[in-house]
Amino acid sequence: MAEPSVTPTPVLKDELDIVIPTIRNLDFLEMWRPFFQPYHLIIVQDGDPSKTIKVPEGFDYELYNRNDINRILGPKASCISFKDSACRCFGYMVSKKKYVYTIDDDCFVAKDPSGKDINALEQHIKNLLCPSTPFFFNTLYDPYRTGADFVRGYPFSLREGVPTAVSHGLWLNIPDYDAPTQLVKPLERNTRYVDAVMTIPKGTLFPMCGMNLAFNRELIGPAMYFGLMGDGQPIGRYDDMWAGWCIKVICDHLGLGVKTGLPYIWHSKASNPFVNLKKEYKGIYWQEELIPFFQSVTLPKECTTVQKCYLELSKQVKAKLGKVDDYFNKLADAMVTWIEAWDELNPSGAKSVELPNGVAK
Amino acid sequence: MAEPSVTPTPVLKDELDIVIPTIRNLDFLEMWRPFFQPYHLIIVQDGDPSKTIKVPEGFDYELYNRNDINRILGPKASCISFKDSACRCFGYMVSKKKYVYTIDDDCFVAKDPSGKDINALEQHIKNLLCPSTPFFFNTLYDPYRTGADFVRGYPFSLREGVPTAVSHGLWLNIPDYDAPTQLVKPLERNTRYVDAVMTIPKGTLFPMCGMNLAFNRELIGPAMYFGLMGDGQPIGRYDDMWAGWCIKVICDHLGLGVKTGLPYIWHSKASNPFVNLKKEYKGIYWQEELIPFFQSVTLPKECTTVQKCYLELSKQVKAKLGKVDDYFNKLADAMVTWIEAWDELNPSGAKSVELPNGVAK
Repeated sequence: MAEPSVTPTPVLKDELDIVIPTIRNLDFLEMWRPFFQPYHLIIVQDGDPSKTIKVPEGFDYELYNRNDINRILGPKASCISFKDSACRCFGYMVSKKKYVYTIDDDCFVAKDPSGKDINALEQHIKNLLCPSTPFFFNTLYDPYRTGADFVRGYPFSLREGVPTAVSHGLWLNIPDYDAPTQLVKPLERNTRYVDAVMTIPKGTLFPMCGMNLAFNRELIGPAMYFGLMGDGQPIGRYDDMWAGWCIKVICDHLGLGVKTGLPYIWHSKASNPFVNLKKEYKGIYWQEELIPFFQSVTLPKECTTVQKCYLELSKQVKAKLGKVDDYFNKLADAMVTWIEAWDELNPSGAKSVELPNGVAK
Repeated sequence: MAEPSVTPTPVLKDELDIVIPTIRNLDFLEMWRPFFQPYHLIIVQDGDPSKTIKVPEGFDYELYNRNDINRILGPKASCISFKDSACRCFGYMVSKKKYVYTIDDDCFVAKDPSGKDINALEQHIKNLLCPSTPFFFNTLYDPYRTGADFVRGYPFSLREGVPTAVSHGLWLNIPDYDAPTQLVKPLERNTRYVDAVMTIPKGTLFPMCGMNLAFNRELIGPAMYFGLMGDGQPIGRYDDMWAGWCIKVICDHLGLGVKTGLPYIWHSKASNPFVNLKKEYKGIYWQEELIPFFQSVTLPKECTTVQKCYLELSKQVKAKLGKVDDYFNKLADAMVTWIEAWDELNPSGAKSVELPNGVAK
């Protein structure tokens, strides 16, 4: 490995956990060492719990395999997916920190156009610590960034923004395509570095990818549930999408912001499109009904915490999506179990966070 | 002047007019010669009609001063602003082409990061000729661009997109700030080239700047009215903003797209912030009521043409904004006059365009 070329400033060192789902040795961490080593890692081992995952020396980590999850959650462990990267959300639950960054183990350090290594974590932290602007579009992108501002015609009453709950980063090299697009464009690589961060407007859904994602656990953690995927379930590869739809409608309701854009990571390996197609095909079909559902969800005013919002959402999932497939009845039940488990592990924490700003405009 | 370094391909040569409002000789066109010369120009001369505006040789143009506007529109000329760049919308009305590009005379050719001159018009045409995606956010920006696509989780039913009505370009060097921001940050320059084009989502308003703007006249022309500004009016510098709010709610209603991002032009000269403050201060105050109004406007299903939408909007402006200031009653009347004048000058054209897709989802 090359020597670290950057001396990182470990911002939020004691307030952020890095959550990594994996089935293999974590050699990829060597490349991230200059940026990740000051932080605590939560490794969620998927698949065979008897296998030993090697973590490079010098990293501070805790590791959970399936046996640990079953032991800690008991019967509630049923809400955590197995043989799917959706298992990562167990890491969100056991974290005790305010912020979480999650990254896949096939993601490496990307370079910016000047050739400099991108400290993805640092950019995510910047995104999370500065406000979002979901109520009106700023044509020069993030108005809080150095060298930018709100443009003429941007209402002054909206310039303070709202707290940012989620920072969604992007990928150079292998883009995050579905199986049909992978099959049609096997050689397409993302080479375009778009130097922008922006707020996804209120009322607009987006496809949230879990590969390179950070969030404020206190603000939105209990909604970051990656659903029932993989072993014993009819779909996969919709874990992050499901979470993205849920967090977006809840952020919109609670007046919280979701940012996307920088930072980029280097995504090294496309997953097998034939395997992906098998995992995805029901999701591709179902999402045509899921999107209209999430586009029309409204949460009542009484839902003033993430937990209340999420439980209400689970009810609506059961009522309106149960007829699409019985899977959604199971998923709705798992959403409730997830919240029960979250509250059990986080007894005094996020449960009672009432947002000062209340419901969004 | 430097020799043109680029041999342009004049796309849509006979289907696009370039509209330029001005009070001075159009020397700025020299720099644009390689890109603009194949196209027809419509110059709208503001201010003293006895002054002669010099246009560099070799350009094909028609020029209208205030006397021409009064002669052509008669009493309806009252809807066209005087001593304000809002007068440019007269050019939209007299054009007979399908597309319009409008640019300010203090805007020059910008360079991309590789140092190449940017053919702004060519990029606008690309934007207008490819679809928009207002119903769902694509995290890799314009999915139709070479090297990009729809990402995993993007509903397949939405991948055909909708026709693009408006292409909003940006500015390097002097950003388009309001007077207070100009005063606070007199030295700020926009140096960030963001290599992206994106659709502004349905239901989201944006501050549309008229400096570097293209649109499909057949799809949205009758809504591109720049309002009553300047001479005899209580405000200025809200002409493009007003048009932007109106076109956005109408595009949302009719299922049309609005794109923003590339191309950049080089904005050379900041206007005087003290003069701007005088023009803007009522607008800055009023926009706090205008934005909620436009955010909540709904147009009935019967509004199936731009004209019908615009007349309905004028009614709602009168009903709901008349109480903010009597100016909005005058503006609502001028909106009606504008449509009457448009239909008089475009008797068989846009008037009867019923959109095949009808009302948006």
